[in-house]
Amino acid sequence: MADSSAMSPTGKRARPALPPWPASGAPRQAAATADRLLESAHALLYERAGSDVPVAEICAHAAANVAMVKYCFGNKDGLFDALLERIVSVLVADVERLDRQDLPPDEKLARHLRAVVRNYVRFPYLNRLLNQRLLSGHDEAVERLSRSFALPMRRWYASVLAEGQEAGTFREVDPTFFFFSVLGAAEYMFSARRWMERAFEEQIDEELLERFTGHLTQLVLTGIQPGTSTASAP
Amino acid sequence: MADSSAMSPTGKRARPALPPWPASGAPRQAAATADRLLESAHALLYERAGSDVPVAEICAHAAANVAMVKYCFGNKDGLFDALLERIVSVLVADVERLDRQDLPPDEKLARHLRAVVRNYVRFPYLNRLLNQRLLSGHDEAVERLSRSFALPMRRWYASVLAEGQEAGTFREVDPTFFFFSVLGAAEYMFSARRWMERAFEEQIDEELLERFTGHLTQLVLTGIQPGTSTASAP
Repeated sequence: MADSSAMSPTGKRARPALPPWPASGAPRQAAATADRLLESAHALLYERAGSDVPVAEICAHAAANVAMVKYCFGNKDGLFDALLERIVSVLVADVERLDRQDLPPDEKLARHLRAVVRNYVRFPYLNRLLNQRLLSGHDEAVERLSRSFALPMRRWYASVLAEGQEAGTFREVDPTFFFFSVLGAAEYMFSARRWMERAFEEQIDEELLERFTGHLTQLVLTGIQPGTSTASAP
Repeated sequence: MADSSAMSPTGKRARPALPPWPASGAPRQAAATADRLLESAHALLYERAGSDVPVAEICAHAAANVAMVKYCFGNKDGLFDALLERIVSVLVADVERLDRQDLPPDEKLARHLRAVVRNYVRFPYLNRLLNQRLLSGHDEAVERLSRSFALPMRRWYASVLAEGQEAGTFREVDPTFFFFSVLGAAEYMFSARRWMERAFEEQIDEELLERFTGHLTQLVLTGIQPGTSTASAP
């Protein structure tokens, strides 16, 4: 990722090589098509960085018959749900790996924030797809994403925040609010990236991502330091 | 807003009375239908809290002929653009009014953050509509929203941050990153509100909004205090 031109997830310039797709181990013969469909959905959503992709294009890209979507996933929503499940399982595994390391809580959070920013580069369509599924009214999809992503993430934030509070590094912070405000602070630059380009005339390249990670880390880690409550906070 | 049951922008329970729609002064006779269409779009989007609303329903609600959408706004996108313009002009006017008050910069920011949270309650569909227009590929819509919202907001953040830095209240903060991280930290709880309800089993009511405003204010105002840089920030 040293080449800054390869980092622009803006869809405006020639696309860089696609970041590696997280494999699901050695798929059985029957699951190979499903895996190819997921990989194609990822590739095309990455390319479009947020716009919708017709199921026919995904099938053409995967060299799969359209009927295979129905066979493997029920329908397009099912395919996108499976894609989301794959991605969030990667994110949660990252957090679990980080948690097993012997690091102070502020260092754990700093590394996590860096990874969150990087994941919006790896999966620039993640938030749009997530919000689409959350707003879809399909309770089952919401439940599944709650179990596989929201609950484990909030649980991890709660444990890191408690650890830091015990160590005297952090003040008391509500882990639910922390979940929303930290992920929101990280994602909005990506979901509103057109403003970055058109209003502020900046490109989301390697240099900008480094500066943004620094900004986010300092805002959050300073923001939860103990004994610095402000007069204005209720 | 003392009644907490009236605050749930979740679409799950009986809807409270619609918050007042910002009027555009005394419309000319010819503009009355346009205004009614905008008000109906607002009412129906508020009711659905994020889901799409067909143009036929907006017209039925406004007791307007479908042809009036074409006459007044060109098409549905034009209607939604006009709705967005109306809302962001209210938000920017709020900031300008706040700016004219003789308040220290941290107090200005604290009041602004409170208003941002309240605006996601008044306009629960705002972010979905904004992001939809930003991702639509219509450069003209992006340009207009840049001029009417992103640029004035960033300019105001830059001026308040500079004022606070001069007064020694704030450290140096990038106003562009501040724009994205602060608005993102405020909005994500609303755009992912299904997680609040289904995963974390909380309702977005008056009491929760007060706690969230406190959390956000403390995170941001502490986060930009000077002389508290952390070892982990690059």
